[in-house]
Amino acid sequence: MPTVLKTFDLKTKAYFDIINITEDVQKCLNNSNINDGIVNVHIAGSTGAISTIEYEPGLVKHDIKNLLEKLIPYKDNYKHHETWHDYNGAGHLRSFLIKTSQVFPFKNQKLILGTWQQIVFIECDERARSRKIYCMIVGD
Amino acid sequence: MPTVLKTFDLKTKAYFDIINITEDVQKCLNNSNINDGIVNVHIAGSTGAISTIEYEPGLVKHDIKNLLEKLIPYKDNYKHHETWHDYNGAGHLRSFLIKTSQVFPFKNQKLILGTWQQIVFIECDERARSRKIYCMIVGD
Amino acid sequence: MPTVLKTFDLKTKAYFDIINITEDVQKCLNNSNINDGIVNVHIAGSTGAISTIEYEPGLVKHDIKNLLEKLIPYKDNYKHHETWHDYNGAGHLRSFLIKTSQVFPFKNQKLILGTWQQIVFIECDERARSRKIYCMIVGD
Repeated sequence: MPTVLKTFDLKTKAYFDIINITEDVQKCLNNSNINDGIVNVHIAGSTGAISTIEYEPGLVKHDIKNLLEKLIPYKDNYKHHETWHDYNGAGHLRSFLIKTSQVFPFKNQKLILGTWQQIVFIECDERARSRKIYCMIVGD
Repeated sequence: MPTVLKTFDLKTKAYFDIINITEDVQKCLNNSNINDGIVNVHIAGSTGAISTIEYEPGLVKHDIKNLLEKLIPYKDNYKHHETWHDYNGAGHLRSFLIKTSQVFPFKNQKLILGTWQQIVFIECDERARSRKIYCMIVGD
Repeated sequence: MPTVLKTFDLKTKAYFDIINITEDVQKCLNNSNINDGIVNVHIAGSTGAISTIEYEPGLVKHDIKNLLEKLIPYKDNYKHHETWHDYNGAGHLRSFLIKTSQVFPFKNQKLILGTWQQIVFIECDERARSRKIYCMIVGD
């Protein structure tokens, strides 16, 4: 069965950044020669995450930021900080909870998503990063 | 490789509803002509979610409802409400956190699940909805 | 398309245990005869979970344990306990939230992961368990 790996790169901001990657993922499908199947959108790293959200400012600039600060605050004193003397313990925990990948179906090379549903990458690290997103496409 | 897309429809209740869709997903496999592989169970939308739980009243009517109210309360004042003047900010955040899809393995057209493990759709929106669930099946 | 199911077994400790299963998953790929594709790492059960984390003592012995205790404490009085007269309500809720599976891409039979990213199984049940992990591999 056809299996195609595509990647794209992102520049992110420190601490909290949420980037709409829907079009990047769609472009990977456009060039895949696979019509129907699934795409595993994945970050190879331990301080990033993948999910979906309606990409509008109220949610992405305020509500998600506030939710993550409430559940996993950056200011807390994590044991992880003693291991490496960095301060991204919250970033690791956020990545653990939201997870680093999600799988999406597509038909006729088009992602099956809701009208208000966008695929997002969430930067959770304490510093700005260059990120590579992997899209492993399997199908027919 | 064989790739088959099946769908089924649900009617949900407003605010919090959790529906056992295990048999619906199993029926999609029964009619797929694919023996072994994976099925991506997916909601195309931004206020629903997919996960698994032991589908018994204590958990589904009380404990999960209480957990989600504790983590992401409906009554909070989300910025998202100012964008559209609706009140489903909590619904979007719950969908973001639990996520809109999960992938399950199957063998001989039978889902591989624990005895007490059921696949569920969680309605997170503030109003009752008609939902279409997508099952993209890939395998052999 | 080639589809291969592999499994491996774990012994876990009660209440909270987090086991690095990266090498176990990699070994499943080594013996699969599939070069490129995705692997769905899955627990058939309702009180375990799969995710990724940097597997170092600060995070795995302290920070994740504390996070889960904060979000879903074991000591709380869950309605689930009245159904079966056991005390693993928190375990079910943790499994529901983190989820029982995750999908990873691989190329040339090698998992695509970050340097500090390990695949982990999280035991959430109130008693020590014998666990079977399913790795459904699809690809080319």
